[in-house]
Amino acid sequence: MLNIPDSSHDRIVIIGAGFAGINLAKKLARKNFQVVLIDKNNYHQFQPLLYQVAMAGLEPSSIIFPLRKLFQRNKNVHIRITSVTDIDADKKQVSTPLGTIYYDKLVIATGATTNFFGNNQFQKNTFPLKSLSESLSLRNAILSDLELALTEPDYDHRQGYIDIVIVGGGPTGVELAGALAEMKKYILPKDYPELNEKEVDIYLFQGGDRLLMGMSDEASDKALKFLQRLGVKVELNKRVTEYDGKYVTTKDGQKIVAHKVIWAAGIKGNVIQGIKEDCQSERGCRYVVDQYHQMSGIQDVYAVGDIAYMPSEDYPYGHPQVAQVAIQQSKNLAHNLIKKTLRPFAYKDKGSMATIGRNKAVADIGKLKMSGFFAWLLWLFVHLISLIGFKNKVFVFLNWVWNYTTYDQSLRVIINAGPEEKANSK
Amino acid sequence: MLNIPDSSHDRIVIIGAGFAGINLAKKLARKNFQVVLIDKNNYHQFQPLLYQVAMAGLEPSSIIFPLRKLFQRNKNVHIRITSVTDIDADKKQVSTPLGTIYYDKLVIATGATTNFFGNNQFQKNTFPLKSLSESLSLRNAILSDLELALTEPDYDHRQGYIDIVIVGGGPTGVELAGALAEMKKYILPKDYPELNEKEVDIYLFQGGDRLLMGMSDEASDKALKFLQRLGVKVELNKRVTEYDGKYVTTKDGQKIVAHKVIWAAGIKGNVIQGIKEDCQSERGCRYVVDQYHQMSGIQDVYAVGDIAYMPSEDYPYGHPQVAQVAIQQSKNLAHNLIKKTLRPFAYKDKGSMATIGRNKAVADIGKLKMSGFFAWLLWLFVHLISLIGFKNKVFVFLNWVWNYTTYDQSLRVIINAGPEEKANSK
Repeated sequence: MLNIPDSSHDRIVIIGAGFAGINLAKKLARKNFQVVLIDKNNYHQFQPLLYQVAMAGLEPSSIIFPLRKLFQRNKNVHIRITSVTDIDADKKQVSTPLGTIYYDKLVIATGATTNFFGNNQFQKNTFPLKSLSESLSLRNAILSDLELALTEPDYDHRQGYIDIVIVGGGPTGVELAGALAEMKKYILPKDYPELNEKEVDIYLFQGGDRLLMGMSDEASDKALKFLQRLGVKVELNKRVTEYDGKYVTTKDGQKIVAHKVIWAAGIKGNVIQGIKEDCQSERGCRYVVDQYHQMSGIQDVYAVGDIAYMPSEDYPYGHPQVAQVAIQQSKNLAHNLIKKTLRPFAYKDKGSMATIGRNKAVADIGKLKMSGFFAWLLWLFVHLISLIGFKNKVFVFLNWVWNYTTYDQSLRVIINAGPEEKANSK
Repeated sequence: MLNIPDSSHDRIVIIGAGFAGINLAKKLARKNFQVVLIDKNNYHQFQPLLYQVAMAGLEPSSIIFPLRKLFQRNKNVHIRITSVTDIDADKKQVSTPLGTIYYDKLVIATGATTNFFGNNQFQKNTFPLKSLSESLSLRNAILSDLELALTEPDYDHRQGYIDIVIVGGGPTGVELAGALAEMKKYILPKDYPELNEKEVDIYLFQGGDRLLMGMSDEASDKALKFLQRLGVKVELNKRVTEYDGKYVTTKDGQKIVAHKVIWAAGIKGNVIQGIKEDCQSERGCRYVVDQYHQMSGIQDVYAVGDIAYMPSEDYPYGHPQVAQVAIQQSKNLAHNLIKKTLRPFAYKDKGSMATIGRNKAVADIGKLKMSGFFAWLLWLFVHLISLIGFKNKVFVFLNWVWNYTTYDQSLRVIINAGPEEKANSK
């Protein structure tokens, strides 16, 4: 059983502790609600910096924050670390492996997960990058393969260990490609003098005809130029059709040997059994909500953040699936729940940005298109202030200063969390 | 194949990158040797602080250092991340899964591992604490069990989740017990207000009649008092006879329910097939060496650090298995190898210490016996300067200041490194 005490206040169950979930919980915690926050992890993760964990530039703990610490002062917030297996909207209850729980209002904020578009081969063989454990797996694989490359005399086999293919030219793909190119340039010659870093190829395949489709043409062009200057082999209009774990095959017949293919080609809603998602192509399997965040036709159930699909006049295909939308939606929903009113959601676009490497970023702030050093500084600043926790801000800042001045991340360690079975077998 | 280039210099193969291995490699790297350093991890780990990683007080990356970074400037040091499966002293070669390698001189510095004294039940069910992955497993288990305790209505079952038994009253057991007691006191009431922290019992079982057997009686007494004041249930002359994963049974018939038993009751040499260890009781399965670190009867093979057993007049049962001995032995061996001379090893005991908690430590420095605040400051200082890497020192220091002033470690996150299979299956 979930063991939530009885309360005279309305019980709001929030599923998911991403940007939407924790912002909503924080706002409701100060009012007369009983809040139950359910997540499968005991921490909030700052997704925009996951790629830096994968690249050994930041430690996991710097970009995550323990949920219990976040809500230490909010005695009306009850945190349960478990998964949600089913929602019964008629009985107004949520099922978990620990038991079921009744809700007065339910908020689904489960975010998005990697979309392999039904391809099992990609799902099995590629590296996605949507969670902390996935970014650690990628880090371990990159470092382990470099070790193996050292003792591999055959050129083709060695290529398999050191070449990396990134599928998807959105922010994740672009930022990863840039970081990998810098690792090749600054780290490899120092750490692996026995390897010829010129043998390392970094491919970035984009299905569309430009990078960073959500941003301006200027940003796309600049990102392409920055990456090419760093030596990344960017190929536009390139589709991957097969990957057996060793060879990547593209639609136009190219075949590349690579043990690591990073899948950053799409996301879809992290849906829950019991509530029907909408999987029409442009909707990406999300929950359709009205402008008050209410799920259509289901009483007292709301969805916010990446999982919510709210088409509007300005955004006929829903809002972009980014942190700002999640934060603003959770604020609006909190307002409506607290005031018992119906204020429609209006998204205020603060702009978007992507970093490519040292001193190199692109940013669209309204009509202003920036690129280069100042865009990069802005990127650093915005990400730093968005991080949860003062200590995290300090530690990430110190790490960045360190990495920037020494041209050298110092976290290139292969850590296996070890015999999990022991912990889980009981 | 290991792919080590030919060299006109003598090839020294060092197995193990602990204190002994890296100090020796550093000294030899500056001279005309070809050094091959083999370890199964790509990092050096600072064992004395592993328990703080387990207690969520420090991050793994703060107490480990990547080997390749450590030897970036030493082109005559070749690092290979693999295990050693066999030594053939007649052919002068070492076997690894990556291939075999010839040596001119071989130095075994593989350290010590947990000694379960042949008891499979203990080996299977308890948590040892000799490696980074073991400390992360323990951290994950402690945090996961607290989550489960929250939703467990039955008192006895809940006790199983929250009680912890530590077997062994040496430095590891004492430091862990102190840290756990402080977590119970300062963290539990804040993070788990729904749990009654008074239900949490921390047991420390010591087979001998005092704690910290390697230290002075004064230190033992003080450590006992400090721990008792913190509420740890210390039991001397207590032997654990059985542990089935749920119930601990002691020789005098006590039975305690606990899902977590930490095994800190003994170590033994991390021996390698092909070279015979000496397992007579007090020797703890180590390699017997003469006062020049040479293995008795085997040409050109040396052993230093925890794995070496060098009985002498002052130390009839060999030296204590601590970092200082390993460092001093590696220095003496380096001197002998470089100068082609035979200087006997003379251990200069700089003292020993253990910390129990905030402002509480014990230290024996020659005839000086310290305890309390100044011993604690000294402990912090000594451990800080012994850490490898300037950045690690800074980050550990900042973490300590943070934890000390806020009474709150902020790293209480359950991280599973994720689908390792993917990285390893290729």
